[in-house]
Amino acid sequence: MSRYSEDEIIARVFAPIAGAAALGLKDDAALLAPESAPLVVTTDMVVAGVHFFADDDPSLVAKKALRVNLSDLAAKGAEPIGFLLALALPDDWTNDWLDAFAAGLAEDARAYGAPLIGGDTGATPGPLTISITALGRARRFVPRTGAKPGDAIFVSGPIGDAALGLALRRDPALARRLSDEARDYLTGRYLLPQPRVDLSAWLGANASAAMDISDGLAGDLAKLCRASGVSAAIDLASVPLSAAAREAMAIDPALFETAITGGDDYEILITTGSEAPPAAPACRIGEIVAGSAPPVFLDGHKKPVFFKKLSFQHF
Amino acid sequence: MSRYSEDEIIARVFAPIAGAAALGLKDDAALLAPESAPLVVTTDMVVAGVHFFADDDPSLVAKKALRVNLSDLAAKGAEPIGFLLALALPDDWTNDWLDAFAAGLAEDARAYGAPLIGGDTGATPGPLTISITALGRARRFVPRTGAKPGDAIFVSGPIGDAALGLALRRDPALARRLSDEARDYLTGRYLLPQPRVDLSAWLGANASAAMDISDGLAGDLAKLCRASGVSAAIDLASVPLSAAAREAMAIDPALFETAITGGDDYEILITTGSEAPPAAPACRIGEIVAGSAPPVFLDGHKKPVFFKKLSFQHF
Repeated sequence: MSRYSEDEIIARVFAPIAGAAALGLKDDAALLAPESAPLVVTTDMVVAGVHFFADDDPSLVAKKALRVNLSDLAAKGAEPIGFLLALALPDDWTNDWLDAFAAGLAEDARAYGAPLIGGDTGATPGPLTISITALGRARRFVPRTGAKPGDAIFVSGPIGDAALGLALRRDPALARRLSDEARDYLTGRYLLPQPRVDLSAWLGANASAAMDISDGLAGDLAKLCRASGVSAAIDLASVPLSAAAREAMAIDPALFETAITGGDDYEILITTGSEAPPAAPACRIGEIVAGSAPPVFLDGHKKPVFFKKLSFQHF
Repeated sequence: MSRYSEDEIIARVFAPIAGAAALGLKDDAALLAPESAPLVVTTDMVVAGVHFFADDDPSLVAKKALRVNLSDLAAKGAEPIGFLLALALPDDWTNDWLDAFAAGLAEDARAYGAPLIGGDTGATPGPLTISITALGRARRFVPRTGAKPGDAIFVSGPIGDAALGLALRRDPALARRLSDEARDYLTGRYLLPQPRVDLSAWLGANASAAMDISDGLAGDLAKLCRASGVSAAIDLASVPLSAAAREAMAIDPALFETAITGGDDYEILITTGSEAPPAAPACRIGEIVAGSAPPVFLDGHKKPVFFKKLSFQHF
């Protein structure tokens, strides 16, 4: 099997998709012009077997690795400047895999206006590992720490689709009981998050606090409340669910808990005192209240619901 | 074995060593004030079993992972603003390991004025993997592409020590033939590079091109020449060698080639048309010449020397 050399990977695979700041990837560093806006920087590392399956479509793996970072920028009210890619390739990588990975990356770099500006490629005896650092310019930085009692709590779209998509991949018997349409939709939401870049301007102008929901609504809300020194009351009946998620929950009601506590949504959790709410499909799901107690989740009869585990944790 | 939770890793291990831009690591992103200088950004990923040994002192592993990035900033004439750390922990990590890792990182963050400003911690079924992205402000960005015929070529210090240190670790029989002093010195140069941050101001003012020597002098010079569209003539007798390197070469003359083509020096390769050379221990080793031929390495009798392999490549 013939494979690119390290120099060829840079010159033939990544340099053609790089932006101006990358200096043709001929240098050791990217060079960015001074920005008059504050700079927002975020990094996320994804590992085969942990964050995605090693045999996933390389183009989707690339897009997901980039999008989870763009999602963080959007939640902070920032628009992308560009990103750096550190890539550790496992023993069995192929040129075809790398070409498809780079093509997926290039598509999203164009679509989101976030050019590749630098990186590092090396080998690993372990699984494929991708670390992306994204830079953005903030209109107004939206912190996790700004939620205040009385603020309304919104989510930017349906919750739990990605966690259900993952559950379907892990449980083929369950997957077979769903309609093709629901299965494809949920699996797609797991494989390819949609970072809510459309909301970042609204967030910068109106949100008191925000974060993207990457580890599960319940746990991420608890984090936001801790960071802001507040508590929250959530009306579980108002949490928006997709038709596909409802179909899955009709088969197995325990999947509701999976949806509320599962990761990979990449919708945005928003608190705001503004009278003009974010546009649909954003939904109001509750209110920030004073205190340091964990958030309370209420069912349709206003009874508190307790979850076994609030969110995904690596450790 | 009791271990930190993911939240504890952030709150107890990394938040105490983070800088102001990290916002206490309570948020998904770092926030940097606008800079009037251009921004320089670089990323390097290191993997246990590839770039270091899994049982190396965790404090030295942390320092090396940070220093290879600071070395890139220095070579570009930039001074550090801060860095982001993405860390994938293998199954057998311990609190002690993580505490020592963070302590090493904190020491260097202080010593080099490069605070931790953000990051991501997760699990890997593979080896420990560390990806650091460093940001700096450029006085004047020193590219790889600016070398011109007639420019003098300098290296900032002794060449090959780290490659010899690695050779000693791999060949205990060779290591036993060296004096304790030489062995400790060479091993130390491999384990803990000294990024030449002292040179970045001089480079910004005087260098036509520069890069840090991470993959070996011969190969890195070839890269710089290709990027600049020039060739070079190197006088191998002027390449500075440490006393310890000379001691090793007296035992095995083939180690000279290891030194010239081996990686991990983190000295800086400099081209300059300036009449005021960089201060000692920098040494003039040759001259940039016109043409697109690979650099020529001449021995003491002005005869060209050919190396089997110019530098380290992952693939």
